[in-house]
Amino acid sequence: MSCFISSWKISRRRIQGRFNMPGRIVKKTSDKFGLPPGTLIHTGEKMTDRVRITFFDYDENNYSEKEASSIEECFELRDTPTVTWINIDGIHDIDIISKIGSHFNLHPLMLEDILHTNQRPKIDDYENHLYIVVRQYFYDEEENEINAEQVSIVLGRNYVISFQEREGDVFNPIRDRIRNNKGRVRKSGADYLTYSLLDTLIDSYFIILEKIGDDIEDLEDEVMNYTGPSTIFHIHRHKRNLLHLRKSLWPLREVVGSFRSEETDLVQESTDVYLRDVYDHTIQVVDTLELLRDMISGMIDLNLSSASNRMNEVMKVLTLIATLFIPLTFIAGIYGMNFEYMPELKWHWGYFASLGAMVVIGVVMVIYFKSRKWL
Amino acid sequence: MSCFISSWKISRRRIQGRFNMPGRIVKKTSDKFGLPPGTLIHTGEKMTDRVRITFFDYDENNYSEKEASSIEECFELRDTPTVTWINIDGIHDIDIISKIGSHFNLHPLMLEDILHTNQRPKIDDYENHLYIVVRQYFYDEEENEINAEQVSIVLGRNYVISFQEREGDVFNPIRDRIRNNKGRVRKSGADYLTYSLLDTLIDSYFIILEKIGDDIEDLEDEVMNYTGPSTIFHIHRHKRNLLHLRKSLWPLREVVGSFRSEETDLVQESTDVYLRDVYDHTIQVVDTLELLRDMISGMIDLNLSSASNRMNEVMKVLTLIATLFIPLTFIAGIYGMNFEYMPELKWHWGYFASLGAMVVIGVVMVIYFKSRKWL
Amino acid sequence: MSCFISSWKISRRRIQGRFNMPGRIVKKTSDKFGLPPGTLIHTGEKMTDRVRITFFDYDENNYSEKEASSIEECFELRDTPTVTWINIDGIHDIDIISKIGSHFNLHPLMLEDILHTNQRPKIDDYENHLYIVVRQYFYDEEENEINAEQVSIVLGRNYVISFQEREGDVFNPIRDRIRNNKGRVRKSGADYLTYSLLDTLIDSYFIILEKIGDDIEDLEDEVMNYTGPSTIFHIHRHKRNLLHLRKSLWPLREVVGSFRSEETDLVQESTDVYLRDVYDHTIQVVDTLELLRDMISGMIDLNLSSASNRMNEVMKVLTLIATLFIPLTFIAGIYGMNFEYMPELKWHWGYFASLGAMVVIGVVMVIYFKSRKWL
Amino acid sequence: MSCFISSWKISRRRIQGRFNMPGRIVKKTSDKFGLPPGTLIHTGEKMTDRVRITFFDYDENNYSEKEASSIEECFELRDTPTVTWINIDGIHDIDIISKIGSHFNLHPLMLEDILHTNQRPKIDDYENHLYIVVRQYFYDEEENEINAEQVSIVLGRNYVISFQEREGDVFNPIRDRIRNNKGRVRKSGADYLTYSLLDTLIDSYFIILEKIGDDIEDLEDEVMNYTGPSTIFHIHRHKRNLLHLRKSLWPLREVVGSFRSEETDLVQESTDVYLRDVYDHTIQVVDTLELLRDMISGMIDLNLSSASNRMNEVMKVLTLIATLFIPLTFIAGIYGMNFEYMPELKWHWGYFASLGAMVVIGVVMVIYFKSRKWL
Amino acid sequence: MSCFISSWKISRRRIQGRFNMPGRIVKKTSDKFGLPPGTLIHTGEKMTDRVRITFFDYDENNYSEKEASSIEECFELRDTPTVTWINIDGIHDIDIISKIGSHFNLHPLMLEDILHTNQRPKIDDYENHLYIVVRQYFYDEEENEINAEQVSIVLGRNYVISFQEREGDVFNPIRDRIRNNKGRVRKSGADYLTYSLLDTLIDSYFIILEKIGDDIEDLEDEVMNYTGPSTIFHIHRHKRNLLHLRKSLWPLREVVGSFRSEETDLVQESTDVYLRDVYDHTIQVVDTLELLRDMISGMIDLNLSSASNRMNEVMKVLTLIATLFIPLTFIAGIYGMNFEYMPELKWHWGYFASLGAMVVIGVVMVIYFKSRKWL
Repeated sequence: MSCFISSWKISRRRIQGRFNMPGRIVKKTSDKFGLPPGTLIHTGEKMTDRVRITFFDYDENNYSEKEASSIEECFELRDTPTVTWINIDGIHDIDIISKIGSHFNLHPLMLEDILHTNQRPKIDDYENHLYIVVRQYFYDEEENEINAEQVSIVLGRNYVISFQEREGDVFNPIRDRIRNNKGRVRKSGADYLTYSLLDTLIDSYFIILEKIGDDIEDLEDEVMNYTGPSTIFHIHRHKRNLLHLRKSLWPLREVVGSFRSEETDLVQESTDVYLRDVYDHTIQVVDTLELLRDMISGMIDLNLSSASNRMNEVMKVLTLIATLFIPLTFIAGIYGMNFEYMPELKWHWGYFASLGAMVVIGVVMVIYFKSRKWL
Repeated sequence: MSCFISSWKISRRRIQGRFNMPGRIVKKTSDKFGLPPGTLIHTGEKMTDRVRITFFDYDENNYSEKEASSIEECFELRDTPTVTWINIDGIHDIDIISKIGSHFNLHPLMLEDILHTNQRPKIDDYENHLYIVVRQYFYDEEENEINAEQVSIVLGRNYVISFQEREGDVFNPIRDRIRNNKGRVRKSGADYLTYSLLDTLIDSYFIILEKIGDDIEDLEDEVMNYTGPSTIFHIHRHKRNLLHLRKSLWPLREVVGSFRSEETDLVQESTDVYLRDVYDHTIQVVDTLELLRDMISGMIDLNLSSASNRMNEVMKVLTLIATLFIPLTFIAGIYGMNFEYMPELKWHWGYFASLGAMVVIGVVMVIYFKSRKWL
Repeated sequence: MSCFISSWKISRRRIQGRFNMPGRIVKKTSDKFGLPPGTLIHTGEKMTDRVRITFFDYDENNYSEKEASSIEECFELRDTPTVTWINIDGIHDIDIISKIGSHFNLHPLMLEDILHTNQRPKIDDYENHLYIVVRQYFYDEEENEINAEQVSIVLGRNYVISFQEREGDVFNPIRDRIRNNKGRVRKSGADYLTYSLLDTLIDSYFIILEKIGDDIEDLEDEVMNYTGPSTIFHIHRHKRNLLHLRKSLWPLREVVGSFRSEETDLVQESTDVYLRDVYDHTIQVVDTLELLRDMISGMIDLNLSSASNRMNEVMKVLTLIATLFIPLTFIAGIYGMNFEYMPELKWHWGYFASLGAMVVIGVVMVIYFKSRKWL
Repeated sequence: MSCFISSWKISRRRIQGRFNMPGRIVKKTSDKFGLPPGTLIHTGEKMTDRVRITFFDYDENNYSEKEASSIEECFELRDTPTVTWINIDGIHDIDIISKIGSHFNLHPLMLEDILHTNQRPKIDDYENHLYIVVRQYFYDEEENEINAEQVSIVLGRNYVISFQEREGDVFNPIRDRIRNNKGRVRKSGADYLTYSLLDTLIDSYFIILEKIGDDIEDLEDEVMNYTGPSTIFHIHRHKRNLLHLRKSLWPLREVVGSFRSEETDLVQESTDVYLRDVYDHTIQVVDTLELLRDMISGMIDLNLSSASNRMNEVMKVLTLIATLFIPLTFIAGIYGMNFEYMPELKWHWGYFASLGAMVVIGVVMVIYFKSRKWL
Repeated sequence: MSCFISSWKISRRRIQGRFNMPGRIVKKTSDKFGLPPGTLIHTGEKMTDRVRITFFDYDENNYSEKEASSIEECFELRDTPTVTWINIDGIHDIDIISKIGSHFNLHPLMLEDILHTNQRPKIDDYENHLYIVVRQYFYDEEENEINAEQVSIVLGRNYVISFQEREGDVFNPIRDRIRNNKGRVRKSGADYLTYSLLDTLIDSYFIILEKIGDDIEDLEDEVMNYTGPSTIFHIHRHKRNLLHLRKSLWPLREVVGSFRSEETDLVQESTDVYLRDVYDHTIQVVDTLELLRDMISGMIDLNLSSASNRMNEVMKVLTLIATLFIPLTFIAGIYGMNFEYMPELKWHWGYFASLGAMVVIGVVMVIYFKSRKWL
């Protein structure tokens, strides 16, 4: 009998292992409470040990690439006419952030937002800079987990500074394109580079949604065939993950929609057609997310109906057995009574007559049930 | 007893066979990840073996029609004053697409969208071209499946290029109208031809919805009369199909709404009244879709109530039988006890008295149940 | 026992008879597929045998009224300065429609919409005409059915042409007002007549909603007192009817809202105050519809709770009887065992002692149940 | 056993008595059907026997107050420079309404709306008049009922005419302020008086919502402690009441929002700050209403869960008793068989051994249940 | 058996103790009914005994800070060029409020709103003042309660007057910044001070949501592992709390969104970038609130499924035991009958044969159940 219940005590670990999104729902921000605006405090988890600074410097004909040992190495590039892309992996070193801030003349509130790793995706226009902050998700095949980090992009006149929480390879294809002069990136300005970064980030959502979508279709089969108690927890897990993604995705539409040449002179008109394209992708990601959410909620309904169906089946079996045998047992009980004068007991065929009567009653009930389509 | 449960293990195939929409929910796009924008890669399934190129060239007085063996045959028609309609069935041959692209001067992003068969319906204005991409659904009577493909339409000054994923006959009525000079099509320009294509595509949604609507009404009867466990899966299947259709249909309103003479000079004012008509149709399709969705969700509620009603009935039977016979069996049990001194056992009429008592108790309970309206 | 189940197999006819809305949900339109726009095909049911043409011609001082045997009789009235109202009952005769079309110079798309009896309510402005199409509902007391038809109204400079699918008397009050010169209608132009027609049509929605509202309040009593399995089907039937009405009603707001003097010079400014009034009525009808929908969905919840309450009651009875008698039967079973050495059996008062024990156990359990408030 | 069921047949009267809103949901309007617009018919219930006409006439220094025996007494006040407030209690006397209409030159549609007591709250601008119609609710402590009536306010150049369906004291505080020259009312014009009336009407919503809110919090306790079958009906009753209130409240926002000095020159700019205040109140009432609605729907969920919890408890008891005693009864049944050769029966300690075995089995099962946390 | 039910009678106190929000849902406002607008009545609870008045007076170089014994002490500061911040803790002393009102020339409606502690968050522009009213929440660690109070802020040319219902330390960090000249506050005007106050208030929402979020995640574990009847009440408690917070939070977006330099000249353009930041925070708080609400409603679904799963398990056990033993008991009953001629009873091995038959039947049923995956 243990089997009934053992399936119930699902190892919570096993469920969490399936597309777990680590971390609390509501990130801790109370440390910051009461500090003056613009105070630099890193509120997130420290995701990498050392801060890695790499930079690219290119125009259509030349490019250089370097890993800097100190942030000051990049500073001279600010004033060159070439496009400069400084990438910072790891943001817990407040010293580096504030040096960049003072050299590139970034607003204290912007620096605060870079460090405060629980931003809502947004685009902020600070006269000479455009500050974009989005959330990036990637799927860790080994741990079967979805991880997230905050990516900040600062677009200046001819430089881009990007901040990531940990070292990642999501921007490598763009690095390759710069190195090999593939596509338009070397021919275009800093705005096109920013577009490329955004495009790559949004494409990474497709991969996550693809993974979740596959898992949801598998779950759908599970629900249709047999709904163990753990199925509903898996469904719920995905629902929760989609809630997370949604919180990051919805504002993205606005961010990408505002990143246009009409809005700021940091974006050239020739980049607009590409921004329209990335906007379309964003809408498509949001559409897919909503589709998955609708499917999940359909599956919750389905699971409920399915469970209620099974319950009905089980109850029917019980009712059938009980209504079949309870009357028969009653008859047997009657002839088990010890009255002295019970004429049937003396009849030679009494026993077989009573057995016969039971069979007849049983058969009649089965026929009746059949006619009621209960069998 | 097997019948109870056998109905449960529904062949999933059978359900899927009922208006199945093949393919994954979230289409695979990860192959494209990291490629520069405008890279031509065909991401969809290869739905046809060879690429079939047909073209029409007509004005009010003349028309010619041809199946081209190579795409170059159509190129000279670009500069003629007549209206040219090039139709490409099958888009997996990247070579053909890029040749068309360079000859007709199409933007790389547009070519990418043509090949990337998971587009959200949209209309893009590229200076000299209008790019429209929509999803077309058709019902395969034999397989009882709903199939979908992406249709791209490029409207130039006096030519229309349409891309379909597989050979289909949905545009045949328009071909006939061109051949026989029926309706306004031969008298009008490329914009009217585009309108005709769109109108046909949107009309095909009506057919799909009609099919689904019929099936839903049948299901409603099923739910009202008897709700087997498979009914809920059919309902769910339709809900899912409608989710798919909705994803393609909602943006269509915007697409058709933007295809107006005010927006672009590729559309003449005289076509506007027809575009208003096709817009009305789109709204009507969306309305019908939403109506069906509301009906489906009503049916899910109904099915739940219905199942709960049946459960109540079954429980009532069980309760009735059990409450009727358990006390009677108890009485029989009492007189089945083997105490030496049980005066009733010696009474001559004891047996019949006890039987009589049982009948009386039974009758009283039945009357009581009747008065409670349980019978 | 048949009574349990017989109530289940509700005659579907009986439910449908309660405010049935005949016809399919998604009307058949596939016949039209592939035809050029403006092709005249009547897609609806033929609701009347012959086409009846009546016309009124009036100004403030005079009026004439006639039933025409052929449509040509009305044609001369087009150019008179008096207001002319031509009413066509029955639209299946394409010949008549096309004659009117060519004489009054109506756009082919308008004629197509008149014949295509599944229009979404809309108002279309064709230079010299305003085309209004709405859905009219009326309640057939005898059949206990709600019937619907499409009413098209063409407003020209000084004439109104109205198309109904069947002969009806909904416009009779307006005819009386014209005959008896009651109200403003004879003093005003064709726009006021159109307003009067619309006003009457919208008022007819109130009657339908009144009927449904009455029935819903009766159902509410039913749900509160006893919820037979058919109640939920009636609720569902109304939900479905309201979905239908809603599909026709929501666009009506837009139609009436657009029928203003600012929009077209076919409407005089003096009529505006009346149009505002009819707009208020439309909003009120929509409000009432939504109120009824909210009530229906409240009743579905209530019915579910109510059913679950009843289930609880039934289960409690079963549990009570079973938990009371199963232990007692067990005791009887013990003393029914045939062991040779069972000392209690020899006791003179053993039987009465065991009976007494049973009574005590039963009483204790009843008291316990009472203390748990189960009784 | 009657107790189970008797609680079910709740006296519907008792539920209705708890914040009953009398009258039909969809008010009868079909009497009006077909009448020309502007026809004066009183469609509501006659709520008072005689029509009571009172008027105030005041400026900053003087005021007079009178109950008029005929409406003509008030007519001369129309042209005085002082502010005149005519209040009509009871609107069933069409004669009075039409006299007012002709003397004050009110539009027939306005008069129709005054009489037609099922108006949606609205504000209509008729050149020289502003017509405001709202719904007023008051709580009848004695009958424990919520009553509603329609209040129409006509704002002219320097007079206000208010129409109530029955005599009420809701405006008494304003009368006192006029009499005692408290507040700004005597110093301001007719627009400020209208504001005061509106303010009082909206404040009366707070009182209703306060009452309902108190009752809902009591119900919440009931749901948490014990959910008898009547609780759900009370919840439903409030849900229904809130639906009614909502229908009257939502349009109120628009009405108050449109009553501004920018919109009409009947309102002075100095009154605007007060109108903003009353607008804030309206928003707050709507917010509170929505909060209560959310609470109600939360309680419906809670009640369902609560009922399902109780069901689980009851089922557990049944399962426990049944699974404990059914196997034991089976053992007793075995030794109650009458086979001639059953060795155990001959054993001296057979009886006690079997009793012992039963006890052991029972104890083992109880321990097992405990370990499963079922006990 | 008591354990089943005892868990049911949850101490309501214990639930309420978990993040209780004290006070009624709909605050009492009926005391105010009928009073002229601008009448000063304190409608809230008296939360502090004495009124505490503190003020700061500062510019970039100097600052003074004092606790005033009477409100008049602050009056002279109104006309100094320095920034003055007067903070009033406790608003029940109407005398003080009206003195401030007359000295600073505040509108009577504003004073009324300050005293009426159930305001909806709003911003009102009174020519020379900006009136902001928001709701502040703080978590009382000791009582495990969430408390709320109303905070009113009046922004004048170079002074800020803030009104709190009780003494609190939420503004202490700002006081420290003024004292120590940290951040921009001493360098900026009264508008920046107002921003700082708002920023602090909004940050306090994060802390509340963090607390609730932690508790919700704990509850999620509870639901997944075992759902006692009290879990659903905790979930409901949080749902209710979030409803409260939402009522205060949604309007906040509008308030902060309207507090911009374009709207009023009391705000300098240099403060705008900080206001954008606080606006972002507000959006983020609202997002988090909605996320929590979505999670709660997901948990309600999950709890329902979970309960229904458990019910299924319990029912399965019952069905299994019953269907296994009822037929066996029936067989035992047959051989317990007392017919004189029952041949099997005479067989020497009859007893063992019947036992064997029972074992076989039992085993077959278990195998059957296993094959049906019921075991």
